[in-house]
Amino acid sequence: MTPLESLASVVPADIIISDRDVMERYLHDDAEWAPFEEALAVIRPRETAHVVAAVNWCIENHVAVVPRGAGTGLSGGANALSGCLVISMDAMNRVLEVDVAERTARVQPGVVNNDLRAHVAEDGLWYPPDPASAPWSTIGGNVSTNAGGLCCVKYGVTGEYVLSIEMVNGAGKLVRVGKRTAKDVAGYDLRGLVVGSEGTLGVITEVTVRLLPLPPKPRAVVGYFDSLVEAGQGVANVTAAGIIPSALELVDSYCLRAVDDWKNMGLSADAEVLLLASSDVPGAAGEEECAGIVKAFEDAGATFAAVSESDEEAEAFFAARRLAYPALERLGPVLTEDVCVARTKVPEVLGRIQAIAAKHDTIIAQIAHAGDGNLHPLIVTPVGDEDAKARAQLAFAEIIEAALAAGGTVSGEHGIGLLKKHGLHEELSADVIDMHTAVKRALDPHGIMNPGKVFDPSH
Amino acid sequence: MTPLESLASVVPADIIISDRDVMERYLHDDAEWAPFEEALAVIRPRETAHVVAAVNWCIENHVAVVPRGAGTGLSGGANALSGCLVISMDAMNRVLEVDVAERTARVQPGVVNNDLRAHVAEDGLWYPPDPASAPWSTIGGNVSTNAGGLCCVKYGVTGEYVLSIEMVNGAGKLVRVGKRTAKDVAGYDLRGLVVGSEGTLGVITEVTVRLLPLPPKPRAVVGYFDSLVEAGQGVANVTAAGIIPSALELVDSYCLRAVDDWKNMGLSADAEVLLLASSDVPGAAGEEECAGIVKAFEDAGATFAAVSESDEEAEAFFAARRLAYPALERLGPVLTEDVCVARTKVPEVLGRIQAIAAKHDTIIAQIAHAGDGNLHPLIVTPVGDEDAKARAQLAFAEIIEAALAAGGTVSGEHGIGLLKKHGLHEELSADVIDMHTAVKRALDPHGIMNPGKVFDPSH
Repeated sequence: MTPLESLASVVPADIIISDRDVMERYLHDDAEWAPFEEALAVIRPRETAHVVAAVNWCIENHVAVVPRGAGTGLSGGANALSGCLVISMDAMNRVLEVDVAERTARVQPGVVNNDLRAHVAEDGLWYPPDPASAPWSTIGGNVSTNAGGLCCVKYGVTGEYVLSIEMVNGAGKLVRVGKRTAKDVAGYDLRGLVVGSEGTLGVITEVTVRLLPLPPKPRAVVGYFDSLVEAGQGVANVTAAGIIPSALELVDSYCLRAVDDWKNMGLSADAEVLLLASSDVPGAAGEEECAGIVKAFEDAGATFAAVSESDEEAEAFFAARRLAYPALERLGPVLTEDVCVARTKVPEVLGRIQAIAAKHDTIIAQIAHAGDGNLHPLIVTPVGDEDAKARAQLAFAEIIEAALAAGGTVSGEHGIGLLKKHGLHEELSADVIDMHTAVKRALDPHGIMNPGKVFDPSH
Repeated sequence: MTPLESLASVVPADIIISDRDVMERYLHDDAEWAPFEEALAVIRPRETAHVVAAVNWCIENHVAVVPRGAGTGLSGGANALSGCLVISMDAMNRVLEVDVAERTARVQPGVVNNDLRAHVAEDGLWYPPDPASAPWSTIGGNVSTNAGGLCCVKYGVTGEYVLSIEMVNGAGKLVRVGKRTAKDVAGYDLRGLVVGSEGTLGVITEVTVRLLPLPPKPRAVVGYFDSLVEAGQGVANVTAAGIIPSALELVDSYCLRAVDDWKNMGLSADAEVLLLASSDVPGAAGEEECAGIVKAFEDAGATFAAVSESDEEAEAFFAARRLAYPALERLGPVLTEDVCVARTKVPEVLGRIQAIAAKHDTIIAQIAHAGDGNLHPLIVTPVGDEDAKARAQLAFAEIIEAALAAGGTVSGEHGIGLLKKHGLHEELSADVIDMHTAVKRALDPHGIMNPGKVFDPSH
């Protein structure tokens, strides 16, 4: 019996993909600079039992498991390993239950983020985590990378909305980890350990998320700046004023022009750098908060700062922010950075990144979840220019060094995958890598769960 | 060389306590129903190096480590084990740094919760977690139990404010786990694993916490009810209305009378059960929120519901809530329950607890962080009445059963320690206990970190 015949004896044949051409799109995520290898096969389970059977087959046959959602990841975490079984959870995409009174939703991992948001909005509820990939990325993938987004400055990251996780663990058992209630301190927070573990501890088969009441429609504040450093100071001023906006984003003119060229939104004329803030505090207090943000921008040297005049105008600005990444991708391969530094270090590190761009003669467009200190320098290279790609990789490494030197982290929200492994080993001490190794071996005793991703075991 | 002489060769002799009478207060926490054993010695480190030396001495000499803060725990988690070394962190009680711009504080584990709150308030900042023990309990202890409090319904538990932890781990290494920035997904969330692990994974030597701007002074809403079940319905109505108050507490008349008898506050006259809510939303939106809470209470059958007329009146009600536990302790030994159920199950489970009290002829006073579904039935027994203590333990076990049957947890915020171990094993599946066992063995390879607490290893 061939391995594929053996696999087909434990899961339905119609969920197995082994044709190389059909497999192609399941072999890598959106990190086009990360390597990937050839899988044995891809399966697209329709039910949890398929996952249990497949993982146990992999344990018995010493086959590596690479779980994936929509493949919108930006660090190669879902990239195929040689001879592995890719388990694509995209077909398990149902919202199983919304408990309106308790404000929770139980979903399959393949549910698309925006679909969940639309679903619960019908009941006046809100799932806050909003990665820019929300129209495509899945909840399972969001949980596996602990995805962030624009909301995080006020509402936190994906992990804060994950109550419990059902998963097939490294021992091949179907387990449920996490909480059933608002508070629960019974035992170790294994739920938190799985969040952000990028498929290295098991395959997620169900997620129960916490919801909030839908917030009021936010007001937007826009600030125009002549330089990144002044915009960075605007961010620091907002924090120092004790204001927690519901979003605080930075977009530079390179991104705005790319969006304009694509969508003709007419946004790029007047500023080198734009700060976009929003406030969802209702009533007079919200007006006061917006006035405080305008003042913080002006004090940092904004050439223009004002509360947006209409919902449509506000929406256009935030739409441009969300479109920045796909707009740049139209221009050529983009190497996406994702460092995070203290909010007070934002001006300094933005300046460092500009210097790095100049040094390596690279185009680095800047977007940032600035209110969190989460910077996304986007290194754009012309199509087919291998020399530019090499320079981009040097700049990428230097930006990581700059973030670490400023006390920051190599990944704020995209995860480590393959692209950031070297950086992770620089960021964490050898003793902490030892702890990672011990935990990984404890929970994945057969060593089959996405091996070689995130970190290299220490011994 | 005796063991004590050997210990004195690695840490200063003046931090070692070995006199039985002086040791006494370090041998147990406030869970007076939980057993404790005789320690080899107690040490009170003044600096991190003392902890590193002591833990490595324990590894070499196969001596169990029991870490503790102020000993205000209510489940026996800090109770001494035979021949163990108790490491009391109460002398390492300095706030090391407050970063106002970044809104973080770096503290030693022995800092008392209220002292930290007062310290950061000078800079207009706020450390939200507010367990009722806040005047005495330490941040290290709060982190080890993932302590809750009144604020949780809106602001979450201790773990949500812990950015990073420095600790001596089970390998005897001084490590720092967690984040340095607002967002960080570099590696496993070992920080989250340590939060709530009750000293079973290491000894915490420093904590960096996240702070918020001080919120506006809250308004209070009081509701009087004739029955626990109606009050429970009031809680469910608040949730269903999409309101997230900054506190939502339940206190029954038994507690109010005990507080009155002690402090003569005159609060107990008119209600069988009190609901206390607060709103810290500013301006008109806050007034609207308060009106919504009043309506939710009235719809549930409140005999009286109103926004409190003055800050003093509001403060008096919340002070009574905080004094309920010590007031009851004056009457005799109190067995404190700490179950948590879905908010919508609060009326049903409160009714079940009343039935359990009647069945076992026990006095069960009720306080609850009702907005979280976190119930604290307090089983009060007359001094010296052994038969009443036996009946209380039966009731305790049945309340756990009732909470589990309603889909709840055996511990919302007090931790498992010794008193709830049986309940934890009922709550978690054998496969999840296997995962706990694997993690514990991985991170505490010598088996010295508070062994036998929280759970019994499965193999």
